[in-house]
Amino acid sequence: MFLARVEGTVIATRKHPSFEGCRLVICQPIGSDGQPEGVPQIAIDAHGAGLHQRVIISSDGMAARKAVDDDESPARWTVTAVVDEPQKAP
Amino acid sequence: MFLARVEGTVIATRKHPSFEGCRLVICQPIGSDGQPEGVPQIAIDAHGAGLHQRVIISSDGMAARKAVDDDESPARWTVTAVVDEPQKAP
Amino acid sequence: MFLARVEGTVIATRKHPSFEGCRLVICQPIGSDGQPEGVPQIAIDAHGAGLHQRVIISSDGMAARKAVDDDESPARWTVTAVVDEPQKAP
Amino acid sequence: MFLARVEGTVIATRKHPSFEGCRLVICQPIGSDGQPEGVPQIAIDAHGAGLHQRVIISSDGMAARKAVDDDESPARWTVTAVVDEPQKAP
Amino acid sequence: MFLARVEGTVIATRKHPSFEGCRLVICQPIGSDGQPEGVPQIAIDAHGAGLHQRVIISSDGMAARKAVDDDESPARWTVTAVVDEPQKAP
Repeated sequence: MFLARVEGTVIATRKHPSFEGCRLVICQPIGSDGQPEGVPQIAIDAHGAGLHQRVIISSDGMAARKAVDDDESPARWTVTAVVDEPQKAP
Repeated sequence: MFLARVEGTVIATRKHPSFEGCRLVICQPIGSDGQPEGVPQIAIDAHGAGLHQRVIISSDGMAARKAVDDDESPARWTVTAVVDEPQKAP
Repeated sequence: MFLARVEGTVIATRKHPSFEGCRLVICQPIGSDGQPEGVPQIAIDAHGAGLHQRVIISSDGMAARKAVDDDESPARWTVTAVVDEPQKAP
Repeated sequence: MFLARVEGTVIATRKHPSFEGCRLVICQPIGSDGQPEGVPQIAIDAHGAGLHQRVIISSDGMAARKAVDDDESPARWTVTAVVDEPQKAP
Repeated sequence: MFLARVEGTVIATRKHPSFEGCRLVICQPIGSDGQPEGVPQIAIDAHGAGLHQRVIISSDGMAARKAVDDDESPARWTVTAVVDEPQKAP
């Protein structure tokens, strides 16, 4: 599970049928200092995360298939939480 | 699930029998700015994604095995969507 | 399973219901020399790991779902141990 | 699934019994331009891939366990194809 | 499965009960030239791998749970082989 920042959404006409009606967001993993790190992931978002919001994303396939309600979906990543505020050591 | 750009196809005569008749594409993960990031993945493509097109690829093994219709296939990555257009914050 | 250092906690009001009541910590993977390496992971912590403590985190989804007591949770990473002291070759 | 180049083989006397009689090859992931990228993987090779040959490797554990014919093997990566020739856009 | 070098052991008093009595080693992934690459992994070692020895480590969760004899363990990585000698192309 990564801390990530929402960088945009993805629109796709040709896609796996299980993705129909799903909101797909581009999530840039970030460090605890907010700096981008590593490759963005595309995640299914059921929480309505806004642009630039910090979220937690998870690669759990079983939960993703549940999220799109299709046991044979290739979905893997989901937005699992919208972060209020990261708390760091002083 | 990564945003990726199709960089080519792969032809292999010696391969796992479950890959017979499958289109295998080289997918370079990209950031939301379109720059390459990380190692390319080989994915099974049933959407006929064209060269340089942006796609979403997923590592879900169960869906990949379904895609090649072989429960014992080592297939892991599939092209799950062909992107119309990424939408970013202004 | 990574060696990681706890860098903070995450508070999220909008989240998957299975995360309710869970402590979520930001875990920065570190090398055996203590230097940060790679992207931080968000892990569920049932051990009460303190800030800056070294921990072992694991990506095992089954154990994570067990930790939050929800078979359909998207949880993936858990703190599996709090390190007493790393022992290295002289 | 990565595109990789075979860089050598590994010999191990002390090993999990399921690896007995298996050919283990060091596979360096490469980009579509043939340049090395990321950490090499050790894969089980049933295709007799030669040194410096390009192969596709997959992390599917189920298929790997099948390859070594042991349901409790820790095997994860297998060579799934030997590449004839990568085809890229001009 | 990575080629890795054992860099030390980890001692943890507070840990998942399934880790009780297990030897945990810090494994630095290395390239075929022996250079470190990527983030170290913590692996369960049942082979008694010595410091600085080259090993193969695997992320197979099922095998790891078997190794600690606990179906609900968060264990993921195990040392699956101790390398005699890597063989590379001349």
